Amino acid sequence: MKAEIIAVGSELLTPDRVDTNSLFLTEELNKLGIEVVRKTVVGDHRELMAEAFRDALNRVPLIIACGGLGPTEDDLTRETVAELLGRKLRRNDEIVRTIEARFRSFGRRMPEVNLRQAMVPEGAEPLENPRGTAPGLWIQDGERQIALLPGPPRELRPMFLEKVLPRLERRISGARMYQREIRVTGLGESLVDERIKPIYQRHPDVTTTVLAAPGEIQIHLRMWTADREHAEKTFAEIEQGFEIALSDRIFSRDGSPMEEIVARLLTAHSATIAAAESCTGGLLAERLTSIAGSSTYFLGGVVCYSNELKTVWADVPPELILAKGAVSCEVAIALAEGIRKRVGSTFGVGITGVAGPGGGSEEKPVGTVHIALANSAGVKERAARFSGDRELIRFQASQLALDMVRIHYLYDGKNPAKRA
Amino acid sequence: MKAEIIAVGSELLTPDRVDTNSLFLTEELNKLGIEVVRKTVVGDHRELMAEAFRDALNRVPLIIACGGLGPTEDDLTRETVAELLGRKLRRNDEIVRTIEARFRSFGRRMPEVNLRQAMVPEGAEPLENPRGTAPGLWIQDGERQIALLPGPPRELRPMFLEKVLPRLERRISGARMYQREIRVTGLGESLVDERIKPIYQRHPDVTTTVLAAPGEIQIHLRMWTADREHAEKTFAEIEQGFEIALSDRIFSRDGSPMEEIVARLLTAHSATIAAAESCTGGLLAERLTSIAGSSTYFLGGVVCYSNELKTVWADVPPELILAKGAVSCEVAIALAEGIRKRVGSTFGVGITGVAGPGGGSEEKPVGTVHIALANSAGVKERAARFSGDRELIRFQASQLALDMVRIHYLYDGKNPAKRA
Repeated sequence: MKAEIIAVGSELLTPDRVDTNSLFLTEELNKLGIEVVRKTVVGDHRELMAEAFRDALNRVPLIIACGGLGPTEDDLTRETVAELLGRKLRRNDEIVRTIEARFRSFGRRMPEVNLRQAMVPEGAEPLENPRGTAPGLWIQDGERQIALLPGPPRELRPMFLEKVLPRLERRISGARMYQREIRVTGLGESLVDERIKPIYQRHPDVTTTVLAAPGEIQIHLRMWTADREHAEKTFAEIEQGFEIALSDRIFSRDGSPMEEIVARLLTAHSATIAAAESCTGGLLAERLTSIAGSSTYFLGGVVCYSNELKTVWADVPPELILAKGAVSCEVAIALAEGIRKRVGSTFGVGITGVAGPGGGSEEKPVGTVHIALANSAGVKERAARFSGDRELIRFQASQLALDMVRIHYLYDGKNPAKRA
Repeated sequence: MKAEIIAVGSELLTPDRVDTNSLFLTEELNKLGIEVVRKTVVGDHRELMAEAFRDALNRVPLIIACGGLGPTEDDLTRETVAELLGRKLRRNDEIVRTIEARFRSFGRRMPEVNLRQAMVPEGAEPLENPRGTAPGLWIQDGERQIALLPGPPRELRPMFLEKVLPRLERRISGARMYQREIRVTGLGESLVDERIKPIYQRHPDVTTTVLAAPGEIQIHLRMWTADREHAEKTFAEIEQGFEIALSDRIFSRDGSPMEEIVARLLTAHSATIAAAESCTGGLLAERLTSIAGSSTYFLGGVVCYSNELKTVWADVPPELILAKGAVSCEVAIALAEGIRKRVGSTFGVGITGVAGPGGGSEEKPVGTVHIALANSAGVKERAARFSGDRELIRFQASQLALDMVRIHYLYDGKNPAKRA
């Protein structure tokens, strides 16, 4: 089945807001095997809306519309669709009572204007909205189906899942969408694509999307089939191919972000970690503590921007900074070992670099970063030269630091210093 | 003048990607006084694309389309529009030479397939693309104008600004868009709107959008007029009204984020800052150091998640933590004063709280945060109970901490402890 999404609202035609409901709706529709063939954004304008709905009705059997169900005169979706289908609008007393009760629960009287939200086109089914005043509407018109949903995502999402999804499921049989998300770090988009293309091209029934995100490449696999087992088998085959092509560069097989993966590893090994950051300015600590329950593995960290604090907080010898410079592999190692000893954690991480835009030199250009990971067995150091702006350089540095912890566990907790 | 935007590309009909080019294009078109009346997303499908372009051509005199100009068989924008307008496609040798030179500069030969990108509909003007292989196209068809632009934002944006904008400006006279962005913190969206509505409603010629973002409310003012002075005068009048209605809750009058505002204040006063963070886990340090040149005012910070490290790094007396609990105003004050003395900075910030989802109690539920700001004259403490998830609670805590620095300077650097 094919569907179109119509987003109604003049605010979606300003530079401030983009229609994000359609991403959620597309994903849910795709899962049912329904393809979205067009998305339209139209303002709160009677004629232009009517035209958008009329055209869509001529093309596809399913329209999901969002927005324009509010109580004010700007909100024209109900009226427009009713007129287009030649149906009268009638006041639904049950909806009136629900809206009145909602206002009463806040200790307020229902304003007269909200009566507009109780108007229902003949033959349409109202969809309850426990999170707002605007009920949705489900209209069956011959072979065509139209769902009118409220614009706010926190009202639209549960209404779609609870009210629209069951109605669609009843009408649909056969293919569903199955999906996987694999994440890769340390390789560029084109290199990833070059390596995995021969694998995913063997499966024309799988839609593969390769997306570049800061510090990582995300690979989405999607498959529409009525045969769940076939989907699982196909994904397993593709993933096996990816493992060979990308090896230890795959860090996530379920779409989880790097900090989540590292948090799981540290928790599973009852290990703790501490960080001494310079150029990342606390970003590594922030990511490690963004996960609920992080206090079990994250003990603490210091952001030592000045040379003096590198010495005071992580015992970096001042003469080392003088000899090698604050941005050097030696200082990264000293930071990692120093913070580890100070805090008494399993791991210590040290990061120093030039995030830019200023501070670069010919020898150490903007993007130069040194990262060290220390444990009781020794220390492993990585040097990198990242490209991008300040934000991107800092993110990539934190990503590589986290990846070094992951790699440590991947190779069975062997002393990272002893690996080639 | 009215315009429509058509985004071409099947990837924009997946759950992964949303068309963001249209926000940039809308803003730029609005500045010229051109209104966007519809946005359409259509897949790489000849018939569906033809229908989208045909309908739009019947409605408006200006179409800006993006995507579908690549070298592969999926890329159908050129062919579709040429056929729709009844124009033949001809190979443009200059474009061929440009693409060949581009490949040569990378040390590669131009693949045969890229010849498709040199095909130009009769009478169309190619728009040079220094950042990619796909040239854009400008087509004048009677009174109608069509710009075909490449999909990648880093190619589309400069091409629009350098090639399309001048062509539109020649055809346009009169009204332009003028804008302001004001940011507010510490008040909810509905309260802000309630207070400023009487002000902006007096100016029906100004479009006002109130957007809720984490930790702040953004107010966008937009005005279309041929009279620049009138716009400036109107904005000044509105802003004056906002100052009275929102008082010191306005932190940004030019759309800058809070960390930028605080960075400017610290730099202007040659002041320095250090932070001892618990629940924010380094987010405050990360935001303070996200600004280029932050080493002039940010000396360092500690993330002391464990009670022990609060004592070791910021001299919080263990008996104080025992008596009052780690999440208490007393510990926040001790953190702020301790880190300030240790680092020797003008300001010390201490943050402790319950970010959740676990760790809450009846007395100190999730969202409870204590923040202290110390300087040589004393210390000021704020307690808050934020709602939202872990990420939002942490962000709001960092926002309030930054706001306390701003407020300090707003009241002339008087001892914050002595303010009511």
